[in-house]
Amino acid sequence: MRRYVSEVLGTFAVIFCGTGAIVINQESHGAITHVGIAITFGLIVTSMIYAFGPISGAHFNPAVSIAFTAARKFPVRELLPYVLSQLLGAVLASATLRFLFPANALLGATLPAGSELQSFVLEFILTYFLMLVIMNVAYGSKEQGLFAGVAIGGVVLLEAMFAGPICGASMNPTRSFSPALLSGHLEHLWLYLVAPTLGALAAVFTWQFLTQPATAAEATKASL
Amino acid sequence: MRRYVSEVLGTFAVIFCGTGAIVINQESHGAITHVGIAITFGLIVTSMIYAFGPISGAHFNPAVSIAFTAARKFPVRELLPYVLSQLLGAVLASATLRFLFPANALLGATLPAGSELQSFVLEFILTYFLMLVIMNVAYGSKEQGLFAGVAIGGVVLLEAMFAGPICGASMNPTRSFSPALLSGHLEHLWLYLVAPTLGALAAVFTWQFLTQPATAAEATKASL
Amino acid sequence: MRRYVSEVLGTFAVIFCGTGAIVINQESHGAITHVGIAITFGLIVTSMIYAFGPISGAHFNPAVSIAFTAARKFPVRELLPYVLSQLLGAVLASATLRFLFPANALLGATLPAGSELQSFVLEFILTYFLMLVIMNVAYGSKEQGLFAGVAIGGVVLLEAMFAGPICGASMNPTRSFSPALLSGHLEHLWLYLVAPTLGALAAVFTWQFLTQPATAAEATKASL
Amino acid sequence: MRRYVSEVLGTFAVIFCGTGAIVINQESHGAITHVGIAITFGLIVTSMIYAFGPISGAHFNPAVSIAFTAARKFPVRELLPYVLSQLLGAVLASATLRFLFPANALLGATLPAGSELQSFVLEFILTYFLMLVIMNVAYGSKEQGLFAGVAIGGVVLLEAMFAGPICGASMNPTRSFSPALLSGHLEHLWLYLVAPTLGALAAVFTWQFLTQPATAAEATKASL
Repeated sequence: MRRYVSEVLGTFAVIFCGTGAIVINQESHGAITHVGIAITFGLIVTSMIYAFGPISGAHFNPAVSIAFTAARKFPVRELLPYVLSQLLGAVLASATLRFLFPANALLGATLPAGSELQSFVLEFILTYFLMLVIMNVAYGSKEQGLFAGVAIGGVVLLEAMFAGPICGASMNPTRSFSPALLSGHLEHLWLYLVAPTLGALAAVFTWQFLTQPATAAEATKASL
Repeated sequence: MRRYVSEVLGTFAVIFCGTGAIVINQESHGAITHVGIAITFGLIVTSMIYAFGPISGAHFNPAVSIAFTAARKFPVRELLPYVLSQLLGAVLASATLRFLFPANALLGATLPAGSELQSFVLEFILTYFLMLVIMNVAYGSKEQGLFAGVAIGGVVLLEAMFAGPICGASMNPTRSFSPALLSGHLEHLWLYLVAPTLGALAAVFTWQFLTQPATAAEATKASL
Repeated sequence: MRRYVSEVLGTFAVIFCGTGAIVINQESHGAITHVGIAITFGLIVTSMIYAFGPISGAHFNPAVSIAFTAARKFPVRELLPYVLSQLLGAVLASATLRFLFPANALLGATLPAGSELQSFVLEFILTYFLMLVIMNVAYGSKEQGLFAGVAIGGVVLLEAMFAGPICGASMNPTRSFSPALLSGHLEHLWLYLVAPTLGALAAVFTWQFLTQPATAAEATKASL
Repeated sequence: MRRYVSEVLGTFAVIFCGTGAIVINQESHGAITHVGIAITFGLIVTSMIYAFGPISGAHFNPAVSIAFTAARKFPVRELLPYVLSQLLGAVLASATLRFLFPANALLGATLPAGSELQSFVLEFILTYFLMLVIMNVAYGSKEQGLFAGVAIGGVVLLEAMFAGPICGASMNPTRSFSPALLSGHLEHLWLYLVAPTLGALAAVFTWQFLTQPATAAEATKASL
């Protein structure tokens, strides 16, 4: 139960602060700037990882939970409660932003600036590298684990920074779902559900290749 | 005695640098920018935690001291001296800024950009997550403790970044009290005394839930 | 084999995100800003070091691989496969950017803003200090090793920040090669191949001096 | 000898990158921005501390060396060679910038924006807190030592950020001396030699108070 509460709270914080930065930037006529929005997204992930990592693993992202499950690092029976907790946290965050800023039309929803293909490819690559960093630091050495929050939050920050103006740099289905739902902009939502999930799964396969034990053929060859 | 001096010095530094960034941004016609102000607030908290953490615990904030007391992690008899030390440091900081920049009208005072309700809810949520991070890293694993300055300073930075344009992102009664007192803008001060304190207390109750030992009922059920 | 894949992936990420920030800044009429581009370059290096450091050493840069070889810290027979892996990752990154942004003319290619001499000297100094930090943290104490990603990514960030407007702050032959090749701007490329490599080699000689054991003469003198 | 070379190289890097950011910002019509200059100053200090800390202690600043000597943490006979090494590194850095940017008039020299008193007080306070952080993390716990580069570089970054527009945020006599010498702007130099040195000395006295063993009177009282 505590793990689900932790996922609700952490996802609330990430969506409230991250999409809140976009909303308040609009409300304040650009005071935060795109640079400030990207810094907000990265640092809330870093802080929530150090706060909630030991309790729930600090997923806050269905694509991450699905990829961990595919990597057999997360029990299948926990997947649905985790995703529901993340959705609950995200929807509460967007609802709170709507209450605070009723005149805001988009609530930080992600929309492609150009073609859907362009944003699809970008979201796939962004989430691929995000998940690759997550797998490597989460299952690497103790030193890598120490810096997990810095490395993962750093990826979120830099990817939000450079790719935000084109695809919104979602990397997270719930981060796109809740503002889309509450603002009524569901037209490109499929893209932000599918591309991050596929990117995270591709990262798991890459990580399995990078860390696999020697195959039987290699072992035979090595033993000769 | 050294702990009180540490709280005076640390609170002076946080208020002098943080509200000083707001004052100098006005004096220099926006050279620092809102992004620079938020970075200043976050990094002075990070640095002061690494410098003074082992001496006084690096509260620098009455809401934090009150919440620690409510969590039974801080002795009640120390609460008043800590809060007075924080107030002293903050008032000295605002007085120094007034001496250096006598023409500045606000001295970095926090004022709601919109309704009081909007800023009240924001300050409650900001301080809630700040205190939740503080409790988790302060009473978590040794690894979490190592990154306390990064995680806590990071929350201050990102919350100042995204919420500053609406509510001033105080999260700290002394940070609002001393510029309000010295600039004479006491009209919304109650909000910045009450909302952060309530937010910090709510975080303590959440943290107690997240880390509580199993209840008798759960223990019985588990032992069957 | 896994080490080469790690160099391909890491170099892809550094070039895709870093030069992607330049490309998207142009496509979005300056939304990212020069500050955002520099932050992107620094953080992708930090994150890739924590993700791939234990697998391949996280070079991602032929000048670094050549300098490690000259320092007798990297086997000569691995140099060519590493450099080819880095070139492959970089060319794939620039090709992906060209696919996503076909109208972009430069793809983030580095070009001197002033004279070639000015940029040559700058690139030499930039890579000299980058490599000096790499050698000192990679072969220093365990504590220095822990912060390798922060220190090395920090140098890339700050050097991209202050020197970018003059020389492009390449510090890496593949980072300049692949955008130059795919955009057809090869006119100043020699500079970005030669200056970083010479700078990195000079850093190795400095590092050898700073960490050398006492010479025979000094040892004799000390033993008297 | 290696320690002096380390001080020459580290001070060169800090002055070359830091004042270079100011010079290139002018040459590029503000591309770096004040925020970028402050980030450059902070990160070069962080990186140089992780690179050279174990060799020379990473002073790079005569005010720091003088204060360490006053604290009896640094041998008096090493003070002059350290200060001369720092001056040599700084003058070489400013000379290199002059060679690269011969048309630049100021070379990043620090000049008060308002009265000398205003900048004197600011420089005193800035260096006071910089040195207080240095003493606490350098002579604190092992954990504090790990984050020395983050905490000290963080203070430099934030102080350059908020105070730069008024006093230039020197905090370091050599950082002001070499651009003043090579640009011929010596008119306010005395301020930047005296105020940081006094501020650093005041920090040492504060640190001695904060960490002193119990006095005889206290010990007697405690033993009763």
